[in-house]
Amino acid sequence: METPIVLTSTLNVWRVADAVVDYMLVLPGNEKVQSINPLVGETNDGYLNDIRGRHVGRDEVFAAIRHAKPGPVEEGVAGAGSGTVAFGFKGGIGTSSRRLPANLGGYTVGVLVQTNFGGILSIAGAPIGQELGRYYLHDELDTAKGSVIVVVATDAPLDARNLKRLAARTMMGLARTGAAGNNGSGDYAIAFSTSHAPSLVTNDGMSPLFLAAIEATEEAVYNSLFRATTTTGRGHTVEALPIDKTLEILRRHQIVK
Amino acid sequence: METPIVLTSTLNVWRVADAVVDYMLVLPGNEKVQSINPLVGETNDGYLNDIRGRHVGRDEVFAAIRHAKPGPVEEGVAGAGSGTVAFGFKGGIGTSSRRLPANLGGYTVGVLVQTNFGGILSIAGAPIGQELGRYYLHDELDTAKGSVIVVVATDAPLDARNLKRLAARTMMGLARTGAAGNNGSGDYAIAFSTSHAPSLVTNDGMSPLFLAAIEATEEAVYNSLFRATTTTGRGHTVEALPIDKTLEILRRHQIVK
Amino acid sequence: METPIVLTSTLNVWRVADAVVDYMLVLPGNEKVQSINPLVGETNDGYLNDIRGRHVGRDEVFAAIRHAKPGPVEEGVAGAGSGTVAFGFKGGIGTSSRRLPANLGGYTVGVLVQTNFGGILSIAGAPIGQELGRYYLHDELDTAKGSVIVVVATDAPLDARNLKRLAARTMMGLARTGAAGNNGSGDYAIAFSTSHAPSLVTNDGMSPLFLAAIEATEEAVYNSLFRATTTTGRGHTVEALPIDKTLEILRRHQIVK
Amino acid sequence: METPIVLTSTLNVWRVADAVVDYMLVLPGNEKVQSINPLVGETNDGYLNDIRGRHVGRDEVFAAIRHAKPGPVEEGVAGAGSGTVAFGFKGGIGTSSRRLPANLGGYTVGVLVQTNFGGILSIAGAPIGQELGRYYLHDELDTAKGSVIVVVATDAPLDARNLKRLAARTMMGLARTGAAGNNGSGDYAIAFSTSHAPSLVTNDGMSPLFLAAIEATEEAVYNSLFRATTTTGRGHTVEALPIDKTLEILRRHQIVK
Repeated sequence: METPIVLTSTLNVWRVADAVVDYMLVLPGNEKVQSINPLVGETNDGYLNDIRGRHVGRDEVFAAIRHAKPGPVEEGVAGAGSGTVAFGFKGGIGTSSRRLPANLGGYTVGVLVQTNFGGILSIAGAPIGQELGRYYLHDELDTAKGSVIVVVATDAPLDARNLKRLAARTMMGLARTGAAGNNGSGDYAIAFSTSHAPSLVTNDGMSPLFLAAIEATEEAVYNSLFRATTTTGRGHTVEALPIDKTLEILRRHQIVK
Repeated sequence: METPIVLTSTLNVWRVADAVVDYMLVLPGNEKVQSINPLVGETNDGYLNDIRGRHVGRDEVFAAIRHAKPGPVEEGVAGAGSGTVAFGFKGGIGTSSRRLPANLGGYTVGVLVQTNFGGILSIAGAPIGQELGRYYLHDELDTAKGSVIVVVATDAPLDARNLKRLAARTMMGLARTGAAGNNGSGDYAIAFSTSHAPSLVTNDGMSPLFLAAIEATEEAVYNSLFRATTTTGRGHTVEALPIDKTLEILRRHQIVK
Repeated sequence: METPIVLTSTLNVWRVADAVVDYMLVLPGNEKVQSINPLVGETNDGYLNDIRGRHVGRDEVFAAIRHAKPGPVEEGVAGAGSGTVAFGFKGGIGTSSRRLPANLGGYTVGVLVQTNFGGILSIAGAPIGQELGRYYLHDELDTAKGSVIVVVATDAPLDARNLKRLAARTMMGLARTGAAGNNGSGDYAIAFSTSHAPSLVTNDGMSPLFLAAIEATEEAVYNSLFRATTTTGRGHTVEALPIDKTLEILRRHQIVK
Repeated sequence: METPIVLTSTLNVWRVADAVVDYMLVLPGNEKVQSINPLVGETNDGYLNDIRGRHVGRDEVFAAIRHAKPGPVEEGVAGAGSGTVAFGFKGGIGTSSRRLPANLGGYTVGVLVQTNFGGILSIAGAPIGQELGRYYLHDELDTAKGSVIVVVATDAPLDARNLKRLAARTMMGLARTGAAGNNGSGDYAIAFSTSHAPSLVTNDGMSPLFLAAIEATEEAVYNSLFRATTTTGRGHTVEALPIDKTLEILRRHQIVK
């Protein structure tokens, strides 16, 4: 990766990418750089957001990068998650991670999602969407829109091939939440490693990492929903997941006590 | 497709493919054929089956093709599903299908699976594997083996690109059952259309077909397990899913009444 | 395709894409459009061009689209070809086409290239680069940069799969000119069809189209060089292919008379 | 790679693969092996060879593997190259290699081809096929058949991604010889590294290896033709490249002196 990863809304992606390039070009040491590949992800938030207005530009990108810091990431209605909708509820940013036991390498897999897709929400197997009667596909199976961005970070030393395989596994985590892989859903995942260790994880060593990515993605989707709050925009209101009712359903299905 | 699709066990695949070619070459009308692409799938059943013996050859392939007939497909411990293991239980062949409402095209999507993979079985969200304490990854997270074949047939007129997308969606159906996408799991899907209608389904029309493939794959996996019976081979016994206990768990989780 | 195809230089691509979106959003009929996928290609012209300055923005993009017209395309030092270098000579925009005989469908394949890559120029087999002693890899085999854009347009009715195969064949046309496929060379091709005929060209019918794409790409590269003129920028001068000497070499090798 | 690479004719590929598995299973140390991925390539030699007879089986495969030895490889009408046709001339097996200068790593790239495809032969740019008036596409542009296998071996330490990129570059070598990438031409390349050095070649270091693969592939194709001899089979005769006439053309075009 040559730049920070920045997430935004669909029609804004090139304006933001251009701003990322602005930012990179003036960094000390980059005076002679002539090629940059900015990494900008997007989902379509046009239901709640004035997407055609493209309100995120240079100033917002510079501020976002400059204010980035280690530690917990803001979830729910935050950043590019401000206008997203998932399973008919307010979606947003969610994160989760798994750490492998030491005998399996002790590596961490962290996942961040920007949830904005259709399907029928299932939480740890409980049919939340169905019981709450609120989901994208309810009346209009064939018109569901949206997509999801999944960013996977790991400290496991992986080559390009196994990073690609790791990214692919996140789709299995999405599927566990009830995502429907609609036509308009350009679901995609980016995976990167923070390690420069020369000794790569072997193929046989990948299975625990794959399971970690699946589980962390599933949980990150739930977190994006539990942290989101009811949001109004462009004359539309999208309600947050009703947490009390959801917990009641989860209790009834013996998912939580 | 130029040949029937034949499923077998890993070390047998070339012997079976050669037999399929034998079969095709002597069909009336094929006297001058000089190229055939046989379609043979495999999963590794070496735990229960004498896989090194490669006992399926010309006679068995010819018999299988000649006895193929329309109607329900034998499920469970049948054909190449005889020696497979899924989620630590006896796996096998499973089938399922979905038909779209007439206003969405009225198309049918049929799925056949040969289940032979690890993970923790979840049925319609209920944690069956966990509650029964029997699953592949229980003691040995990093050594799970196996894979799955998914065959998708539809009468929807689709081009190669949308067939590929349809096949990819079946992995979401697998994920819903608790499949873990292990390193050794060469999970793959083949999709074909029986239609020669010139007017293809549009991209926008694919979403209901995608959901149909996801759901049918999920159900086909369950069917492969419910139909399988306890099987012994090579000194190993793999028990079938205990149906009574499973139903009790499903009732407790309010999946069935 | 949802937008015109626009070509530019590497660091300018997002600014141009944002301008294309500007243009599309205000077109009559697009008042409610919330998603656009602009198609912008790039090659790195930083040797001659002040690439960091990113001088092409909204005004230039609007002008380019508004002035687009049918008929011959300007070749050589034009548009995004203004700063490109190919085989150590001044590169640029080149075009060529082939029309199939009526008994093979009568289709036309048109190719436009923006040449900006290394290698040793060969014209119809004659070792031009070697005899002229001017080529990218002369002193510095391991540092060659650059890439090429190839745009293929055809009126043959092709599905996505065969368009992709057609695009892939253009790399064979590049290879015939001496392109070396360097590491930094993000060579890529885009192919599209102008036909909406429901009856697609069969796989067997593709071979003549493939050859047409190969030949047209090869010729388009030559045209980009023959039409280019010596260009100075950023203190560097890149000379045009010396036409007289080149013709002399072609005559000596019996390519032309 | 788990097995030797074996090349054969199209309809024989599964029989040969099964024999390779036979061979591997009985090797000392493999007593418990339950999974093998044999690597068998094919081209269609049905014009000269009784391809439907599938005459290569267990005995021939065992003999081929047991007699394999270091040193120069037999070229021309040898092994799976016995019945192939390229550019309308007798094709076959060809090999070539390039060694990089020490300052670029000193690595060797070796290429073996089994030539069996259409197009118009060009040697180092000289239009041999056209001047000799003998080529596949002469009368029947749309019916050309065949394909090519390219095997690339290198001692450069490369990961899977860069091996794939190296293999892709061989198509540029084929293109230089006049190959036409016909629809029926399932041209493919396999690349492998003999190195287990932990320190991989960087992306920037790949360019010289790419050029080596392109050049070695081009030369290997020529060698397959120069070494092949006129061959008769199934009532057809395919003539070898007429070497005297070819040299005369090469001299006339100043390729050789």
